[in-house]
Amino acid sequence: MVNAPVQRMSQLMAKTLRDDPADAEVLSHKLLVRAGYVRRTAAGIWTWLPLGKKVLANVERIVREEMDAIGGQEVLLPALLPREPYEATGRWDEYGPELFRLQDRKGGDYLLGPTHEEIFTLIVKDQASSYKDLPVILYQIQTKFRDEARPRAGILRGREFLMKDSYSFDLADEGLAESYALHRVAYQRIFQRLGLDYRICAATAGAMGGSKSEEFLAPAGAGEDTFADCPSCDFAANTEAIAYELKPVDAADVPASEEIPTPDTPTIETLAASLGVPASATLKNLLVKVDGEIVAIGVPGDREVDMGKVEAHFAPAAVELVTADDFTDRPDLVRGYVGPQGLEKVRYIADPRVAPGTSWITGANKEHTHAKNVVAGRDFEVDAYVDVVVVQEGDPCPNCGAGLKLDRAIEIGHIFQLGRKYADALKLDVLGQNGKPVRVTMGSYGVGVSRAVAALAEQTADEHGLCWPKEVAPADVHVVAAGKALQIELALDVSQKLAAAGVRVLVDDRAGVSPGVKFTDAELIGVPQILVAGRRSAEGVLELKDRRTGEREELTVDEAIARLTA
Amino acid sequence: MVNAPVQRMSQLMAKTLRDDPADAEVLSHKLLVRAGYVRRTAAGIWTWLPLGKKVLANVERIVREEMDAIGGQEVLLPALLPREPYEATGRWDEYGPELFRLQDRKGGDYLLGPTHEEIFTLIVKDQASSYKDLPVILYQIQTKFRDEARPRAGILRGREFLMKDSYSFDLADEGLAESYALHRVAYQRIFQRLGLDYRICAATAGAMGGSKSEEFLAPAGAGEDTFADCPSCDFAANTEAIAYELKPVDAADVPASEEIPTPDTPTIETLAASLGVPASATLKNLLVKVDGEIVAIGVPGDREVDMGKVEAHFAPAAVELVTADDFTDRPDLVRGYVGPQGLEKVRYIADPRVAPGTSWITGANKEHTHAKNVVAGRDFEVDAYVDVVVVQEGDPCPNCGAGLKLDRAIEIGHIFQLGRKYADALKLDVLGQNGKPVRVTMGSYGVGVSRAVAALAEQTADEHGLCWPKEVAPADVHVVAAGKALQIELALDVSQKLAAAGVRVLVDDRAGVSPGVKFTDAELIGVPQILVAGRRSAEGVLELKDRRTGEREELTVDEAIARLTA
Repeated sequence: MVNAPVQRMSQLMAKTLRDDPADAEVLSHKLLVRAGYVRRTAAGIWTWLPLGKKVLANVERIVREEMDAIGGQEVLLPALLPREPYEATGRWDEYGPELFRLQDRKGGDYLLGPTHEEIFTLIVKDQASSYKDLPVILYQIQTKFRDEARPRAGILRGREFLMKDSYSFDLADEGLAESYALHRVAYQRIFQRLGLDYRICAATAGAMGGSKSEEFLAPAGAGEDTFADCPSCDFAANTEAIAYELKPVDAADVPASEEIPTPDTPTIETLAASLGVPASATLKNLLVKVDGEIVAIGVPGDREVDMGKVEAHFAPAAVELVTADDFTDRPDLVRGYVGPQGLEKVRYIADPRVAPGTSWITGANKEHTHAKNVVAGRDFEVDAYVDVVVVQEGDPCPNCGAGLKLDRAIEIGHIFQLGRKYADALKLDVLGQNGKPVRVTMGSYGVGVSRAVAALAEQTADEHGLCWPKEVAPADVHVVAAGKALQIELALDVSQKLAAAGVRVLVDDRAGVSPGVKFTDAELIGVPQILVAGRRSAEGVLELKDRRTGEREELTVDEAIARLTA
Repeated sequence: MVNAPVQRMSQLMAKTLRDDPADAEVLSHKLLVRAGYVRRTAAGIWTWLPLGKKVLANVERIVREEMDAIGGQEVLLPALLPREPYEATGRWDEYGPELFRLQDRKGGDYLLGPTHEEIFTLIVKDQASSYKDLPVILYQIQTKFRDEARPRAGILRGREFLMKDSYSFDLADEGLAESYALHRVAYQRIFQRLGLDYRICAATAGAMGGSKSEEFLAPAGAGEDTFADCPSCDFAANTEAIAYELKPVDAADVPASEEIPTPDTPTIETLAASLGVPASATLKNLLVKVDGEIVAIGVPGDREVDMGKVEAHFAPAAVELVTADDFTDRPDLVRGYVGPQGLEKVRYIADPRVAPGTSWITGANKEHTHAKNVVAGRDFEVDAYVDVVVVQEGDPCPNCGAGLKLDRAIEIGHIFQLGRKYADALKLDVLGQNGKPVRVTMGSYGVGVSRAVAALAEQTADEHGLCWPKEVAPADVHVVAAGKALQIELALDVSQKLAAAGVRVLVDDRAGVSPGVKFTDAELIGVPQILVAGRRSAEGVLELKDRRTGEREELTVDEAIARLTA
């Protein structure tokens, strides 16, 4: 183990900026750029400058240690991957435009790996032949590529990013459950060591396939995910994963449905106002196209449709909203007055809140006309019940019924029980104990390594700048020479001594830069301890300041070294 | 620092093979696959299995420490790069089909970085504004992509590979020379610590541009480079970089040239045989197309043209051999009977051995006819002298004249003084001490990190398999349980104790695998020390074997631990 050299600000490529970059919307983006940690190379594509690279390497190290601790074996797969295995599992097409595709000089099709299920499956197929070779957990810390439609939020959602992805291979469901549990524990340790505040939430599996999955969400205003947190029990879930229970009601007393004239009421708002009823008494029918086929989706009039849930339900089919042209092609669909009753040739999906027996005011499929007392299961049939509404603050907790609290969060980890989807597609079997082939079952697990840096920045920054937890900080101490030659000499001297003792040191030895600028930069850069060589430098006395609490204390050189190596 | 867990062969994804892979031509390819270090994912694209990843990480660590030691600052740039900066320097086109190009979902042009001169230049342009910000050395250890026409030799020449690339930025030529010298020292330390036998050789700069460059070549039969080594002085150079001095001779006594009938002598061999002269008396004229223009290259008849030298001379223009169609289009060029005298409209390049005053037998530009006493500078003009012949064993050393010795070698490092090519193209200036802008001068430096693993395998393997130097080996000791439960228990026990003492341990704890197979695997895998729990396990006595020398010694558990932690 070689001690890291002292990093000198006079030489370091870490130019701080006083102003936020013009295109920055979120805190981590602003601060990581301003403090000289990262620079944008292209949309969603980032360069890690020296301080940023150090933080990234620290996160990487923690992830590696905890993956090793659960018996994970580190490997390194290529980023440039051949088409064939992704063709075999269907993902070459399913992935859509998010997949970077390219051809080599011979016209062969390749992709830049977004995740590596296929290749890991093939590796285990090559390496494992018997039940004795399993279970196994393989992982890598590697650059991934996804052509996001709207790269945003700095490194929170990039098109090239660093990820730890791992894959478990087991003979049976119980084994998969164990591998999954091991990852759950490893992830808890990782995020705890990183100093991240996080919640483990039930999640939809998205495009990965598979049954059980949980997300590790770090609450932050900049997050793209919304999660629901129950104030009364331990329930927490991505709102996309919350499904309302289907509760049929008795409709025996509901009169027959009848049409009512409702001139100029093509929206729920105009309809509810005109009839003097709450929006919740009406049934809203949203039309979408699923791989080109028109599908109607029914939800209570006071609820919004969560397109993420709709897409997850129909995946891998592509979901689009209908356009004016679609209405022209289909005169049976009367814009603003669609109702499920008597709607021919249109598949009808409904939210569980539109349970059998519930009664609604809805479109009558005629201009300026609605119908009332339209009862689900009596006046119209639902082809499938799918919870597609946007969860709202105060919706009942599926576990205990208390009103849910909603928060924004960043997805920092995701664990999936994939099952046999990839093993089936690529025919991954091993010989079982009885001599017969056993189809292997898999899990897939990811930590956003570069994203975790941004999540940490979001959660730990204060009004002065970044403020890193010790294990991930780019240095243990930021030594500031607040003065001229005398202070610079003392700062460099104490820095060398600290480095020799194994302390990671960043020293601001810039000549001709005022103490004020140096203090501001130190706060912005966010190393946990700031050691100032200032007015009492001639006596060999320094001031040690805690970046987070602001607590200060005067110490001699020896005391400072003792304190910082403790 | 967390101690690495014991790696257990019973669980490790490291399947050894008894036979060489069918497509393997070189030793490192065969052994790294057979010993379970790497697997092929696609042509020239490799997966690093756990043992391989450990070796790779060790090489990476050594490179990082030595780059830090010369003040290098580690950064991490993206692999996916926008076209524009490469367009500005001309490399978008110059790179040809070796560059992987792709488009994003919006049709924007991107490339996968083969080297990163452009982006580093832009980073320094963003970060450095004054002479005070320089000099600086930035480096990264990163995956690179090059679409090699013929990926071969396993990981020696892959299309995706790990490289340390660094770039120096200086105000003046003296500074560049210093940064270059620092890298030269760092590279010497790196290759020495890796345990590589290497030579520093003068080199052509290839497509990088720039003036001074040296290669670090590791002698190995599998190498693609040929280097010349002088047995009498310290001269060593890539043969592509050796240029014969131009020595004009006096041609006053040479009679006038005259045509001689030479029926059916379209080759040097047939001509020399027919005339009874040595091939060295004849002048061979090779026709090539340089960006479509036909150029003739004259060399003595007994020498071969080195197309690498020709390509380097004309770079970035593309060089091709002429085809039969070209002769059809140009009746003035008589195939097999081309001579430089009276050759109109063809640029003529000659080797310095065809110096002014030298006299030759060469084609007369007529069927079945040659000319003799054709004197360079008298009977024909040379447009440019370029050393383009293949250096041969025994050619004179340019330094002392002794006969050169030729060897094959692997290029493991390369250092370049680039100068201002990139700074000019991207307008990288800083404010000088006098307040005026100074154009920055650059160096670029590379170590093939994954290639170094293959070079080490090539140089250190013996007839039993791989045989790693200590610092890069995937473990310090390979503990073999040569027996049943008793031996496995002892092997695991001593492994745990060694690991607790900071020793990196691989233990062969496989049940049902014979001691013979385990010994063979241990030799193949090549960990430097092999510790065997065998017949005397009941007494707690193990055998320690040095993998390279084969020396053995019996030790108690405590002695073994003391020895291995010494």
